[in-house]
Amino acid sequence: MKIKAGIAGGAGYTGGELLRILIHHPEVDIAYVHSKSNAGNYVYAVHNDLLGDTDLKFASALHYNIDVLFLCLGHGDAVKFVNENAIPENVKIIDLSQDFRPETNGFVYGLPELKRETIKTATKIANPGCFATSIELALLPLAKAGLLNDEIHISATTGSTGAGQNPSPTTHFSWRSNNLSVYKAFGHQHLKEINQSVKQLMPSFNKDINFIPYRGAYPRGILASLYTNSNLSMEEAYQLYSDYYASHPFVTITDQNPDLKQVVNTNKCIIYLEKHGNKLMIISMIDNLTKGASGQAVQNMNLIFGLEETTGLKLKSVGF
Amino acid sequence: MKIKAGIAGGAGYTGGELLRILIHHPEVDIAYVHSKSNAGNYVYAVHNDLLGDTDLKFASALHYNIDVLFLCLGHGDAVKFVNENAIPENVKIIDLSQDFRPETNGFVYGLPELKRETIKTATKIANPGCFATSIELALLPLAKAGLLNDEIHISATTGSTGAGQNPSPTTHFSWRSNNLSVYKAFGHQHLKEINQSVKQLMPSFNKDINFIPYRGAYPRGILASLYTNSNLSMEEAYQLYSDYYASHPFVTITDQNPDLKQVVNTNKCIIYLEKHGNKLMIISMIDNLTKGASGQAVQNMNLIFGLEETTGLKLKSVGF
Amino acid sequence: MKIKAGIAGGAGYTGGELLRILIHHPEVDIAYVHSKSNAGNYVYAVHNDLLGDTDLKFASALHYNIDVLFLCLGHGDAVKFVNENAIPENVKIIDLSQDFRPETNGFVYGLPELKRETIKTATKIANPGCFATSIELALLPLAKAGLLNDEIHISATTGSTGAGQNPSPTTHFSWRSNNLSVYKAFGHQHLKEINQSVKQLMPSFNKDINFIPYRGAYPRGILASLYTNSNLSMEEAYQLYSDYYASHPFVTITDQNPDLKQVVNTNKCIIYLEKHGNKLMIISMIDNLTKGASGQAVQNMNLIFGLEETTGLKLKSVGF
Amino acid sequence: MKIKAGIAGGAGYTGGELLRILIHHPEVDIAYVHSKSNAGNYVYAVHNDLLGDTDLKFASALHYNIDVLFLCLGHGDAVKFVNENAIPENVKIIDLSQDFRPETNGFVYGLPELKRETIKTATKIANPGCFATSIELALLPLAKAGLLNDEIHISATTGSTGAGQNPSPTTHFSWRSNNLSVYKAFGHQHLKEINQSVKQLMPSFNKDINFIPYRGAYPRGILASLYTNSNLSMEEAYQLYSDYYASHPFVTITDQNPDLKQVVNTNKCIIYLEKHGNKLMIISMIDNLTKGASGQAVQNMNLIFGLEETTGLKLKSVGF
Repeated sequence: MKIKAGIAGGAGYTGGELLRILIHHPEVDIAYVHSKSNAGNYVYAVHNDLLGDTDLKFASALHYNIDVLFLCLGHGDAVKFVNENAIPENVKIIDLSQDFRPETNGFVYGLPELKRETIKTATKIANPGCFATSIELALLPLAKAGLLNDEIHISATTGSTGAGQNPSPTTHFSWRSNNLSVYKAFGHQHLKEINQSVKQLMPSFNKDINFIPYRGAYPRGILASLYTNSNLSMEEAYQLYSDYYASHPFVTITDQNPDLKQVVNTNKCIIYLEKHGNKLMIISMIDNLTKGASGQAVQNMNLIFGLEETTGLKLKSVGF
Repeated sequence: MKIKAGIAGGAGYTGGELLRILIHHPEVDIAYVHSKSNAGNYVYAVHNDLLGDTDLKFASALHYNIDVLFLCLGHGDAVKFVNENAIPENVKIIDLSQDFRPETNGFVYGLPELKRETIKTATKIANPGCFATSIELALLPLAKAGLLNDEIHISATTGSTGAGQNPSPTTHFSWRSNNLSVYKAFGHQHLKEINQSVKQLMPSFNKDINFIPYRGAYPRGILASLYTNSNLSMEEAYQLYSDYYASHPFVTITDQNPDLKQVVNTNKCIIYLEKHGNKLMIISMIDNLTKGASGQAVQNMNLIFGLEETTGLKLKSVGF
Repeated sequence: MKIKAGIAGGAGYTGGELLRILIHHPEVDIAYVHSKSNAGNYVYAVHNDLLGDTDLKFASALHYNIDVLFLCLGHGDAVKFVNENAIPENVKIIDLSQDFRPETNGFVYGLPELKRETIKTATKIANPGCFATSIELALLPLAKAGLLNDEIHISATTGSTGAGQNPSPTTHFSWRSNNLSVYKAFGHQHLKEINQSVKQLMPSFNKDINFIPYRGAYPRGILASLYTNSNLSMEEAYQLYSDYYASHPFVTITDQNPDLKQVVNTNKCIIYLEKHGNKLMIISMIDNLTKGASGQAVQNMNLIFGLEETTGLKLKSVGF
Repeated sequence: MKIKAGIAGGAGYTGGELLRILIHHPEVDIAYVHSKSNAGNYVYAVHNDLLGDTDLKFASALHYNIDVLFLCLGHGDAVKFVNENAIPENVKIIDLSQDFRPETNGFVYGLPELKRETIKTATKIANPGCFATSIELALLPLAKAGLLNDEIHISATTGSTGAGQNPSPTTHFSWRSNNLSVYKAFGHQHLKEINQSVKQLMPSFNKDINFIPYRGAYPRGILASLYTNSNLSMEEAYQLYSDYYASHPFVTITDQNPDLKQVVNTNKCIIYLEKHGNKLMIISMIDNLTKGASGQAVQNMNLIFGLEETTGLKLKSVGF
């Protein structure tokens, strides 16, 4: 018996990406894709790359004769939805917004590389943010070892899909092509969940995380570079990271200086380390729409339903 | 005494490009830049690349103590503006919209390579469209020689700035980057002015102009390739085009296969010819915002006021 | 028992793309990937997006204890390879070069939408060219109906991966970004195989195919627009194409004006039709590396070995 | 009498950019452009955007009947050139390589915002590096005030033209488009000249400069973001920077969060400040080919020959 999945808010970017993955997932039947604005329209009328893949239409109504409900609603809308709808307890919820990331209301923060065992028995998942995913995966091994003893310096660049579907001055092609800019320096909202995760592994952590986010001139992907003071040698650091991620199929430690397109259109995180003096530099790369959003949501679903973690997520990278 | 120039509608793309040119023009004083939506704001608050170049603010009101008024209003708004405002006869008007391109109301079609002498004594100019400029410059030598005796096949690709400042699905970076699409095939609105210009030189012309416009994944520039049956040899064709443009400083005939970035950020048109069997192929390239809009408007102003045609228009190309 | 596949010339673009597909193909074991220049190196040292997907190394020697051999060698090298190596008759050959596309030496032109039944029993496949695939799929329904009675006008733009891995002036990022150029106008080498395929369905075809290829400023994909005179109504044309491709899983006829990214990273071809006066316009889009090369090679393999045609080819599109 | 300028090594990127500027410079005559590899060819055969601007050909021989010689040779070649050629003392030398940036052999480091008065009487100029220019301009006001009292954290991204004309894996379009990568982290060669300049203003400076350079997916421009601990309030910092650059025409302090395309194709540097806790963040942006190379070389020439500093350098920005 396949997993019956419902999707609320399927007309946006994370909804579309979730559909791209789920229509090829061998253990999932999509029960419905709900969208207020597009009810009755073919899914491919909105996500036109799905033409030829599916004849699904957007549903005008939700129901709970399903096993799992993905919430692909805007920030603030997910908490409203959960409050206003009596979702039966047997329906698992995977929320892609930031509303429940403080792990309120019984939601579990859905970063499998941090809390895989908890996720397996969870009924409600708060799927992590994209920047947060890339940065936490870079920090967790050090946190677990209690080695985050100084402030952390991060610069990270995201693709335009991170800004969502609604047009804005900073997603206008004429503006964004060939361009680069900083935003929310030292104040990005993902710092909260990053601190929460780090402290779960290293409760004594009390240093600054200095984070400068950039808007990049490309559609997909996050490359984060971080550094902090560390007494670890290069070899010790490499071993620490390799050990931490040994059982995690989507994270790979590399000894070759990486580039962002290695992970685009995949659910992978690639991590690379360098040591310079007392500075340990960590580069961490993900695709913001897959590992940073919808792919991770499916990874969480796989864990909840006892599937192999990689089911439906062995995605062909775009390469170029 | 410098030319006093007013600009109506200075907050859009053509208004911004006009400002980029006029602030460095040695014979122009900008009397005002009018914008309803931005009155009182610094020009560089909207066109932020002008920061450091000018401390102009957008004016809330127009006046006619000027020598020339540039209309950078939307299509349809220019004709309204002219009808509703009693613009004194001594103020020259250069309209960048399509409203007067059918040469009504005393407006002269402002393509210097077609009617330079008429422009010199004109008081009202209808500045040509961007696709129209690139295509007409490719056809005029054949039309003048009466050699457009068969249908014409055109494909031409434009940059995103051709679509203007208002965000739309096809100017969203996430959509347009790495993408390509056709629009208004066989029905682009510039076909009217192209036909008008060709018939002014060759009244008997009655063949189809088949035009497929493309949206390109870059911000600036139009590359048009055209072909038609022709009895001219390659040498004859090269000579015909070289002779036609011998006295026109912005058009160059090349014998090297060109690429679009040769003209980006300049007022140039570069034309290249190949002969294949009985087909004569013509490649014509311009920057849609300069030669295709605001640069050509300044070229027309130069002609009207008796300046050297290239004054203020020897622009450094971007090169890369 | 899985299909044992060997790959000769696995370090180039088509070899890499073939690996991206085959490592996730449920019915294939990769016996070896041969590369002279990279023998002994990890595959992910060259195709670094495969890091985490495979620990294969490039082999220094070939052998024939395999079921199928993919030739991903340069044009001219494939024919040499076949001549110099005694490949056993039981080993199927799928050649991605142009060397055998004239269907010499027992090779079958591997366009499944043209000759699926022949491919199923073939032992040697000449995999079609990328431009050829997009253009032939646009023309075959008309050819089969004997309706190509006038000359054909084509413009088509390809991504940079079509030019291969060796750096050249026209694949330098500083040059190609934001750029556009025409090359091999009226003389592209794929015209040969296009004519061959059209004449196989419509032996009387004797009209010119006017083809202007463009280099686009993006890495992947071909969008071709074609038109010719036709007496078909829009409805008749749509029906003709729908009927022709009814049983072909990778070709979809759409009634929405498409854009290139619908097909990027998939094995799909999307076709769109418009009628303007007596002109029938056909837009045809593929990914040059998948349906235009390695994806089609796997599609041919699937047919030869009696698998479902889409096995391993239900690829997640990149979308953005 | 115009300045007679010679150019050695005119076929590369900095040579081309220098030509783009000098051909429109009102006070310069280009005496010759020397290139070994292209002697006898038209300049526009190499820098094809100069077609229509100049009929210069590359010279096969140098001479010293000039006022200034620009060296656009590779790193290491400039010092050889100076050693092997007896350049007369009356010929000013402006070297765009890094060879003399340690200020050996009588060369003055040509950053006008650091040492304008020295440059005015100098005969030999070592033109600064591109990253170095953007970073030094961000640090000089703090250094002059003696306020660089803690380590400095820098991330900065450069366009592909920074890597020069020779093709390499990291300048291949298929690789670099939509991509991002770090290189030479903590070890970029420009750190030397940055330290040298900072110490000239603040001899006691002895803190680490942590610099992570990125390769960006665009052709032109550097955006650097820096931060360090500072006791200055936001207002004090803004005043400090405004005062420092009050007399420097190419540097503008802005209070609007900037984006890279504000400076592309100009000789400007735009600087923006934010204060977060005790961290002062400085964003500094230049075009790597103009202010970061050839534009700055012309700025130095202007100073040496007593011209207005901005002569020939009021360049129209590309805007988009």
